[in-house]
Amino acid sequence: MNFVAALNEAAAKNLRVLEEQIRQAISEDPFIFEACEPLIRGGKRLRPMLFVLCANAKADCPPEKTMPLATALELIHTASLVHDDIIDTSKKRRGVETANSKYGAQIAVLIGDWLFAKAFQLVAENDYGGAVQMTLSNLVKNLCIGEIRQDRSLFVVPTMSEYYTRINLKTAIFLSSCCKLGGIVANMTAREVANLTAYGSGLGLAFQIIDDLLDFFGDETVTGKPHGGDLKSGVITLPVIRALEVSGDADKLSELVTRGEVSSADIDAAIKIIRATDAVDYCRTRAEAHIDSARVNLPFTLKTSASLALEQIADFIVDRTR
Amino acid sequence: MNFVAALNEAAAKNLRVLEEQIRQAISEDPFIFEACEPLIRGGKRLRPMLFVLCANAKADCPPEKTMPLATALELIHTASLVHDDIIDTSKKRRGVETANSKYGAQIAVLIGDWLFAKAFQLVAENDYGGAVQMTLSNLVKNLCIGEIRQDRSLFVVPTMSEYYTRINLKTAIFLSSCCKLGGIVANMTAREVANLTAYGSGLGLAFQIIDDLLDFFGDETVTGKPHGGDLKSGVITLPVIRALEVSGDADKLSELVTRGEVSSADIDAAIKIIRATDAVDYCRTRAEAHIDSARVNLPFTLKTSASLALEQIADFIVDRTR
Repeated sequence: MNFVAALNEAAAKNLRVLEEQIRQAISEDPFIFEACEPLIRGGKRLRPMLFVLCANAKADCPPEKTMPLATALELIHTASLVHDDIIDTSKKRRGVETANSKYGAQIAVLIGDWLFAKAFQLVAENDYGGAVQMTLSNLVKNLCIGEIRQDRSLFVVPTMSEYYTRINLKTAIFLSSCCKLGGIVANMTAREVANLTAYGSGLGLAFQIIDDLLDFFGDETVTGKPHGGDLKSGVITLPVIRALEVSGDADKLSELVTRGEVSSADIDAAIKIIRATDAVDYCRTRAEAHIDSARVNLPFTLKTSASLALEQIADFIVDRTR
Repeated sequence: MNFVAALNEAAAKNLRVLEEQIRQAISEDPFIFEACEPLIRGGKRLRPMLFVLCANAKADCPPEKTMPLATALELIHTASLVHDDIIDTSKKRRGVETANSKYGAQIAVLIGDWLFAKAFQLVAENDYGGAVQMTLSNLVKNLCIGEIRQDRSLFVVPTMSEYYTRINLKTAIFLSSCCKLGGIVANMTAREVANLTAYGSGLGLAFQIIDDLLDFFGDETVTGKPHGGDLKSGVITLPVIRALEVSGDADKLSELVTRGEVSSADIDAAIKIIRATDAVDYCRTRAEAHIDSARVNLPFTLKTSASLALEQIADFIVDRTR
């Protein structure tokens, strides 16, 4: 069993409703539907499902309270991917042609804006209240700042601290916000909400570290992306940072990743240098540490079944292949 | 006295507070401030001031109730300009270098996203309630759809009906939403809110028609933009649509504007053809009709001074030079 399957099995009924509501949300405008339906189809639904699981972790939470916000979370995630793809000038995402490649940067920007606005509309019309809205707008602001920090230092080796700041802003805050929102919507105590937030934060850091590993070493037929995409676009991540610390070929690796142009041969060479070090193990060890931190932060007041599901999801994060 | 001066004189004290709050909103992140401060400096503040005037039109509305939303409206407007400039590949806006030209498309997309999110945050943390939030998210969605419709038909002559649909989505709904929000925040009756909305709609249609005229015939030193920018980017507006209906040189004009590439000489030629027709008068007459519609829709329950100010603003729209 893998991570996506575990996540979705834990709330299969909710997943079906979610898929329906996402389709409905983008059906409002025919062009938006045509453009977004293929993009949305291939998603893992990690963020909304994590939110739904957390909302149901202590007691059952009615779908009317979770589904609109779950939909909003997936729309925000999709919007950020659409806008990232403008940035990455990627041709494919989730196995399908990106909005940028299909309609041009102009229209892709507007599609992303529309999705953001639709997400905020779903939240407004379902009276989630100020705490939920603040969490969402903060999470979007943080996503932007994380991406900006990254884009302003392409082809520059970040310090470990800068790397962590970025993956926190780009990924961990999003996942921890999903968990936090689950607690808020289910009226959990402030302490339970804080614990769920910490769980999500550990999950998110681990998730992004594994993502950064998969970018170099994942099965391309499973991830749907060619190796070294990050490096090619100038984003230097943990496997490289670690290899630069310990490799005998650090000078060569450094030259490869900071030159400003990365060929396929360069990527192969970089992968070879990284592989010859302990970088893969090192990244896994760090990811596991964050998963352990996630696990110990789970509130002890949750239903046993929910705790088990959330722990399993945490474990699967490290073993995931996509 | 011109339109901007009239608008701002009517609420000079509010304007100072607004400027301060806009600065404060973008001060949250140092890079965002550096990037946005020059962009925000040159704005007319039409949208927030229109909102503030409407909110104070029946009885005084405390600044705590208006200023955060006024700030949010200006941030949304700025975000949409930043994203438009990616689309237009413009080099200058409000007389200063665009974010796109200064930092690249990637970062400009993220700056716009951040501004949208900050706007929604201001609204969330000030408890404006569902109606305000719905109005804002709808207005952003409509902006996007308006721009998308325009961008998908560049260098194609729109029908009159399509032209009106676009300027409604792109501009009139934004201005009418500002007026509507003023009524909502001031707890006006449903009828008063509807009338203010209709006022804003007339204002907005006239505003955009005049904008489209200024793009051809404005004083470049006042507008800060070279003539024919719309044409160059493939956007065909009312002066051209009218000239194509009545000019003896319609075939030549049609060829110029639909060829897909527009030189400076082409713009001069197009302006000459348009000038030889009644297109300028025709556009002004249409704009005046919308202004008349705006004026008759003003609720009769407003303070006399407010009614006068709103009528004046409507009049100045047609005479504006920037």
